[in-house]
Amino acid sequence: MAKLRVGVVGATGLAGQQFLAALGEHPWFEVTAVAASERSAGKKYVDAITASNGALQWFCGEPLPARFRDMPVALASRLDLGAVDLVFTGVEAETARELEPAYAKAVPVISTASAFRYDDDVPILIPPVNAAHADLLAVQRRKRGWVKGFITPIPNCTMTGLAIALKPIVDAFGVKRVFMTSMQACSGAGRSPGVIGLDIVDNLIPFIPKEEEKVEIETKKVLGALAGDGISPAAFAVSATCTRVAVLEGHTEAVHCELLRGAEPNEVAVAMRAWAESAATCGWPSAPKRWIHVLDDPFRPQPRRDRDAEDGMATSVGRVRRDTAFEYGVKFVLVSHNTKMGAAKGAILVAEMLKARGVIG
Amino acid sequence: MAKLRVGVVGATGLAGQQFLAALGEHPWFEVTAVAASERSAGKKYVDAITASNGALQWFCGEPLPARFRDMPVALASRLDLGAVDLVFTGVEAETARELEPAYAKAVPVISTASAFRYDDDVPILIPPVNAAHADLLAVQRRKRGWVKGFITPIPNCTMTGLAIALKPIVDAFGVKRVFMTSMQACSGAGRSPGVIGLDIVDNLIPFIPKEEEKVEIETKKVLGALAGDGISPAAFAVSATCTRVAVLEGHTEAVHCELLRGAEPNEVAVAMRAWAESAATCGWPSAPKRWIHVLDDPFRPQPRRDRDAEDGMATSVGRVRRDTAFEYGVKFVLVSHNTKMGAAKGAILVAEMLKARGVIG
Amino acid sequence: MAKLRVGVVGATGLAGQQFLAALGEHPWFEVTAVAASERSAGKKYVDAITASNGALQWFCGEPLPARFRDMPVALASRLDLGAVDLVFTGVEAETARELEPAYAKAVPVISTASAFRYDDDVPILIPPVNAAHADLLAVQRRKRGWVKGFITPIPNCTMTGLAIALKPIVDAFGVKRVFMTSMQACSGAGRSPGVIGLDIVDNLIPFIPKEEEKVEIETKKVLGALAGDGISPAAFAVSATCTRVAVLEGHTEAVHCELLRGAEPNEVAVAMRAWAESAATCGWPSAPKRWIHVLDDPFRPQPRRDRDAEDGMATSVGRVRRDTAFEYGVKFVLVSHNTKMGAAKGAILVAEMLKARGVIG
Amino acid sequence: MAKLRVGVVGATGLAGQQFLAALGEHPWFEVTAVAASERSAGKKYVDAITASNGALQWFCGEPLPARFRDMPVALASRLDLGAVDLVFTGVEAETARELEPAYAKAVPVISTASAFRYDDDVPILIPPVNAAHADLLAVQRRKRGWVKGFITPIPNCTMTGLAIALKPIVDAFGVKRVFMTSMQACSGAGRSPGVIGLDIVDNLIPFIPKEEEKVEIETKKVLGALAGDGISPAAFAVSATCTRVAVLEGHTEAVHCELLRGAEPNEVAVAMRAWAESAATCGWPSAPKRWIHVLDDPFRPQPRRDRDAEDGMATSVGRVRRDTAFEYGVKFVLVSHNTKMGAAKGAILVAEMLKARGVIG
Repeated sequence: MAKLRVGVVGATGLAGQQFLAALGEHPWFEVTAVAASERSAGKKYVDAITASNGALQWFCGEPLPARFRDMPVALASRLDLGAVDLVFTGVEAETARELEPAYAKAVPVISTASAFRYDDDVPILIPPVNAAHADLLAVQRRKRGWVKGFITPIPNCTMTGLAIALKPIVDAFGVKRVFMTSMQACSGAGRSPGVIGLDIVDNLIPFIPKEEEKVEIETKKVLGALAGDGISPAAFAVSATCTRVAVLEGHTEAVHCELLRGAEPNEVAVAMRAWAESAATCGWPSAPKRWIHVLDDPFRPQPRRDRDAEDGMATSVGRVRRDTAFEYGVKFVLVSHNTKMGAAKGAILVAEMLKARGVIG
Repeated sequence: MAKLRVGVVGATGLAGQQFLAALGEHPWFEVTAVAASERSAGKKYVDAITASNGALQWFCGEPLPARFRDMPVALASRLDLGAVDLVFTGVEAETARELEPAYAKAVPVISTASAFRYDDDVPILIPPVNAAHADLLAVQRRKRGWVKGFITPIPNCTMTGLAIALKPIVDAFGVKRVFMTSMQACSGAGRSPGVIGLDIVDNLIPFIPKEEEKVEIETKKVLGALAGDGISPAAFAVSATCTRVAVLEGHTEAVHCELLRGAEPNEVAVAMRAWAESAATCGWPSAPKRWIHVLDDPFRPQPRRDRDAEDGMATSVGRVRRDTAFEYGVKFVLVSHNTKMGAAKGAILVAEMLKARGVIG
Repeated sequence: MAKLRVGVVGATGLAGQQFLAALGEHPWFEVTAVAASERSAGKKYVDAITASNGALQWFCGEPLPARFRDMPVALASRLDLGAVDLVFTGVEAETARELEPAYAKAVPVISTASAFRYDDDVPILIPPVNAAHADLLAVQRRKRGWVKGFITPIPNCTMTGLAIALKPIVDAFGVKRVFMTSMQACSGAGRSPGVIGLDIVDNLIPFIPKEEEKVEIETKKVLGALAGDGISPAAFAVSATCTRVAVLEGHTEAVHCELLRGAEPNEVAVAMRAWAESAATCGWPSAPKRWIHVLDDPFRPQPRRDRDAEDGMATSVGRVRRDTAFEYGVKFVLVSHNTKMGAAKGAILVAEMLKARGVIG
Repeated sequence: MAKLRVGVVGATGLAGQQFLAALGEHPWFEVTAVAASERSAGKKYVDAITASNGALQWFCGEPLPARFRDMPVALASRLDLGAVDLVFTGVEAETARELEPAYAKAVPVISTASAFRYDDDVPILIPPVNAAHADLLAVQRRKRGWVKGFITPIPNCTMTGLAIALKPIVDAFGVKRVFMTSMQACSGAGRSPGVIGLDIVDNLIPFIPKEEEKVEIETKKVLGALAGDGISPAAFAVSATCTRVAVLEGHTEAVHCELLRGAEPNEVAVAMRAWAESAATCGWPSAPKRWIHVLDDPFRPQPRRDRDAEDGMATSVGRVRRDTAFEYGVKFVLVSHNTKMGAAKGAILVAEMLKARGVIG
C-alpha cells in the first residue's frame, strides 16, 4: 500500500512539531511537505526552528526525526496542494480560518484548530467515540462545493478524555448531568508565552479563557447523533470549571456524573473496560490496545505517571465510586494526554480512521 | 482584662508550632504551658525542636516568638491543669482520643483533631458560620459530667472555606446540592513525611484518604441546626473529590452548587459581600475585616496570591458564575488558608468567640 | 524634616511596582510622580496596570498602597523634573540610556538598569560595601557638566549578595579567586515572558545570557577602590556559572573562595558577623539590623525560608567551611533577595545612604 | 551464549526496582532470583510491592516487566547462591556491609551501596573511565580468600557524570583543581521519605549530608591509577558544593576546572567528543553510542531535556567555555542521569564490562 502524501502546516509551532514527531515512521502517511509562515518559509526546517542564539526550538520529548531536518519549509499560503493527499494543520484559529478552506478545495484537512468546530456541517471526531459522524463530511462537501477536500477539526484537548470516559457510560446507563473540574497541564497553553513560571510555581490558575465553554459545547456535539445535515447534541447538561496546575503534560479531570439509571461503581468500571476493548480490533496504527485503562489503585490516575499510557493515546480512569449527591450518580478521575491524544496524534488517529473507512486515501 | 492562661499540647508538631506562632502576642491569651510527648518532655522548647544535626525544626513562616524558646516542655499526659484556663491541642486523632477527655474534666479543650467531631454532643465550630452551636457545649458537659471543661474541635481544613462560602448562599437562596473538587496544598499532609517531592513535582495526587467523607459529613453538620441535644445536619447533599497539588499552602476549591431559588451570579456575590461584613463588628482579635473577599478578577483566587488575605483568616471567592447544568445553579472558586483559618488560628478564633460569648474565661 | 519628592519611572513594570510597594510609607521619601511609556501615560495608575480582561497586573506580595491607585501616570519622556527632587528608574537598559541622562541634568537618578554601570565615572553602589564610591558622583557631575543631577545604578541582583558576603572576607583575609555558581529565582527574569512554566517545572536552565559577565565585572568594580577619576577594580579573579531554578524569589549562590591568608571557617564567620553589625548603626530606614545573617544550621540558607530575612534586606550565609582545593580556601552558600535588596529596595537604600552623606536632599 | 543467572537483592526498593526494569529483556543476564527483607520474603513480587491500601509501589517510569510479577521474593540473608552466577545489590550501606561479603564468598557482587567503596582492595568502576581497575578484583579475592566472588560497588551517582566528563580532560590536558556545584534531583534521596514536597517546592536545599566528601574522594579514586595492591588517587584537588533542587531525575553540575596545560574551549570539546566515541566499539549492551554528548546550544544541558539521552546512559555536557580565573581554565555544565547511569543501569554496565573482560561469566 502506497503511503498517503501528507503536508504539515504550522510545522514549526508546538502542534506542528508534535505532528512531525508522530509521523517520522508512520506506516500509512509520509510527510512530503512542511509549511509555516513567512518568518520560516524558504529555510531548511532545522534552521527555521533554531533561534538566533543557537538554541534549537524543538520541544517534543521525542527527537526531531532526521528526515525532517533539511526539508524546505514552504509558505503556508502557497502550499503545493498537488503534492499532498492530506493536510494536517496545527495553527491558531485565526490562521486556520483563512488557510483551511483554501486547502479544502483540493484536499482533506484535519485540524487541531477550533475555527470550524461549531459549524453545522463540521464533525468533531474522536475516532472511538463518534466515527459515524464522519458521514457528515459528505454533507459538508456538498454544501461547500468541495469535491475532494473537507475540514475536520479534532476537539479541544480537555474534552477528549472526558468524551471517551463518558461514552461507555452514556451507552450503558444514560447520562443526565456532568460536572467536571479540570486540572490542566501547562503545555496546553503553548509557549508564547503560555503559563509563566512566576504564575504557576507554588500556585494554580483557576481560569482558562473560553475553555469551559468549549468543553460544555463540544462534549455534547461529540456525543450527539447525526440528524439530517447536522448533529443533534447529546441531551445531557455539562458544567465545567477549568484550572491550570503545575503539571507539564496530561490533563486531570474530576468528573461527577448523574446517570439515568442506577449503576454500581463496579458496573461502570466493567462497562468502561468492555467498551475499551474495541480499540484492540480497529487496526488503526495509532490506536492503543485499550481506549481506557481503568485503574484500581485509589491513588491513580496521576498525570505524570499515567499520561504516557500507550504512548499517550489511552485515557486513564480511576477512583470510580458512587456519587451520593445524585439518586443515580457516579464520580471518577481521569487523565488524558493533552498534547498526544488531545492534539497531533489525535488528529493522526482521525486520519487513520477516515482512511480505514475509505473517506480518504 | 487579665489574659487567659493557655496550654498548647502537641507544641512541637506542625499544628502546635502554628499555635505558638499565632499566640506570641495575643491580646486575650497567654501561653503558660507547652506540652508534647516523651521525646520532647523535659527539654527547653528550642532544644525539643532542634534535630541532632543542628537543624531547627521550626516550620512556620513567622519566626519562633522569643518568649517560647526557653519554655520547658511538659509531658502531655501530665500537663498541670491547674496552671491553665484553656488548652489548645494540635495532636493526631488517636492521641486526642486519650488526652482530650482527661483535660476536659478540668478545662475547656479546643482541638484541631478529628477524634470527637462526629459525637452527637460535640459541635464543630466555625465562628462566623455557626457560633450558636456553642450552646451544645452545655449539653456535652451535662452528658459527660464535666463541670468546667468541654471538647470542641475545629473542622477539617478543607471544609472550612467551603462552609464559609456556602453560608450566605444557604441563607439567601437555599442550597440543594454541592459538588466540590479541591486542589489542596501539601501542608495539609504535614511533614511525616507528608507529600514527598517525587510524588508532587510535575504531578498531582487525586486521592486523600478519608478527606471526602470528612468534607461531606462536616459541611452538613456545621451548616446544620441545633435540635434538642444534637445537631440536625443541613438538608442538602454534598459530594467531593479531593486532590493534592504542588502548592505549599492554601486550598483551592471549585464549587458547583444547585440552589433552591434562582439567583444571578451578581446576587450571590452581593449576598456573600453583605454577609462577610459581619466580621467587621464581631470584635474578635483574630477575625479578618471581611470573612469573604469576593474578587472580580477572573484569574483569581489563586492560592499563592490569595491565601494570606487578612493574615490567612479571610476566604477568597472568585469566578462567581451561573451553573447552567442546574435549573438554579451557581459555581465559583474559593481559596482558604488551610494552616491558618483551617487550623491553629481557626481554633484560636473559636476560643475568642467562646470568650466573647462568655462560654470560657 | 520635609520628605524628598520622588519620581518613579517605569512605574507600571515589575521593578517600578516594587519601588511603589517599598515607598508607600517611607519616612524620608514621598512619591509625587509616577511615569511610564505612552501605553500607560494619561491613565490613573490602577487603570494602567489593569488588563483588558479585568486582571490587576500588580505582582508584588505587598498590596498596592492606596495612595498610588488614582495617581496619574506621566509620560516618562516628559516627566516634570521641577516637581521631584530625585528619580528612581526601573526601566530596561535601552530606555535608561535615553531617559536617565535627560533626567540627570536636573535631578539625581538612581537606577536599577545596567545602561551606565560600566562608565568610568559611574559608581555601582551597595551601601554597606562601598559607600565611599559615592565621591565619584562629583567627578561625574564635573565631567558631564551636570550641576544637580547624576546617575547611579545599583548592581546586577546576582552580584549584590556576593559582594556583601565577600566584603568582610576581603577586609580580613584578602581574596585571590572566587568561583560562584548561582541558582537564581525566576523573578529575576521578569514577566515578559520571563521563564515559562514549561521550561522550569522539573528542570533548570543552565544559562542566563550576559549574567556571568555582569557578575564578574561588577563584583570587582564594587569591591574596587576609588583611584583618581575612576575606580580601580579589585585585584582578585571572579568566575561564575549562572543558572535558573524553580524558585520564585531569592538567589542562592555556592561560593568557593581562595584567600590570601589562612583562615578557619569559624574566623570567617566571626569576621562576617562583626562586619554585619555596622548595619545597626547606619540609621538608614531600609537597612536591616545586620547586613549578613550567618546561619549555623547546615541545611540553611534556603531561598524560600531565608530570602525574606529582615524584609529581604539581609544576606543569609551558611555552610561556611574550609575549601581544601586551595591552600587557603573557604566555601559557603548565600541567599540574597533579588527583587528586594537586589532591586528597588536596594536602590532606595542607596538613596538613603546618599541622603545621609549629604549627597542628595 | 547462555545468559548468566542473576539475583537482585533489595528488589522491592527503589534501586532494586530499577534493576528489574533494566533487566527485563537483557541479552546477557536473566534474573532468576529476587530477594528482600523479612517484610517481603515469601510473597509474590507484585504483592510485596503493593501497599495495604491497594497502591502499587512501583516507581520506575518503565512498567514492571510481566515476568517478575509472580516471582517469589527470597529472604536476602538466605539467598540460594547456587542458583545465581552474579548478584546485584541495591540495599542501604549498613545492610550491604552484612550481606555482600556473605554473597562474595560464592559469587560476584555488584553493588550500588557505599559500604566497601573506600577499602583499598575494592575498585569503584565506571566502565568507560577505569575498566582497568577491574584487575584489583584479583587482589581482593586473594586478600579475602574468595575464589569465585568479589564485591565491586559503583560510585556515588553525583560523581559518575563528573568523572566521565573529566576523563578526556585529564587525558588530554591534565587537571590541577576541580570545583563543582551540583544541583541534584530529588530521586537521589529516595522515598523514605526522601525530599518532602514542603521542603522543595519554591525552594532548594543547599546541603546533602556526606555527599561532598563522597564526590571529593571517589572522583580521585576513580580517576586514579592502579598501583601495587591498591589505587593511587588522582593528583588533583576536588572541592564540591552539593545541593538539592526541584528536579525529579538528573543531576546537573557546574564544573570549574584548572588545567595543567592551556586549552581552548573548542579543544576541550573536541577531546570530549573524540573520547566519547570509544563507546561505539565496546559492544556492551547498555553502553550508549557516545559516552558524552557535547551540546552547542548554550541553554543546554537541562536535566529534564537531557537526562534521558541514550536511555540515561550518556552524560550531556554544554557551555564549555574558558574559566578566566585560572591561568589555564575551562568551565562547563553537565547533566547525568542519577538513577540510570548513576545507579542500577550503571551497575549492569559494570557487569557487562566485567563479562566482556572475562572477569565474570
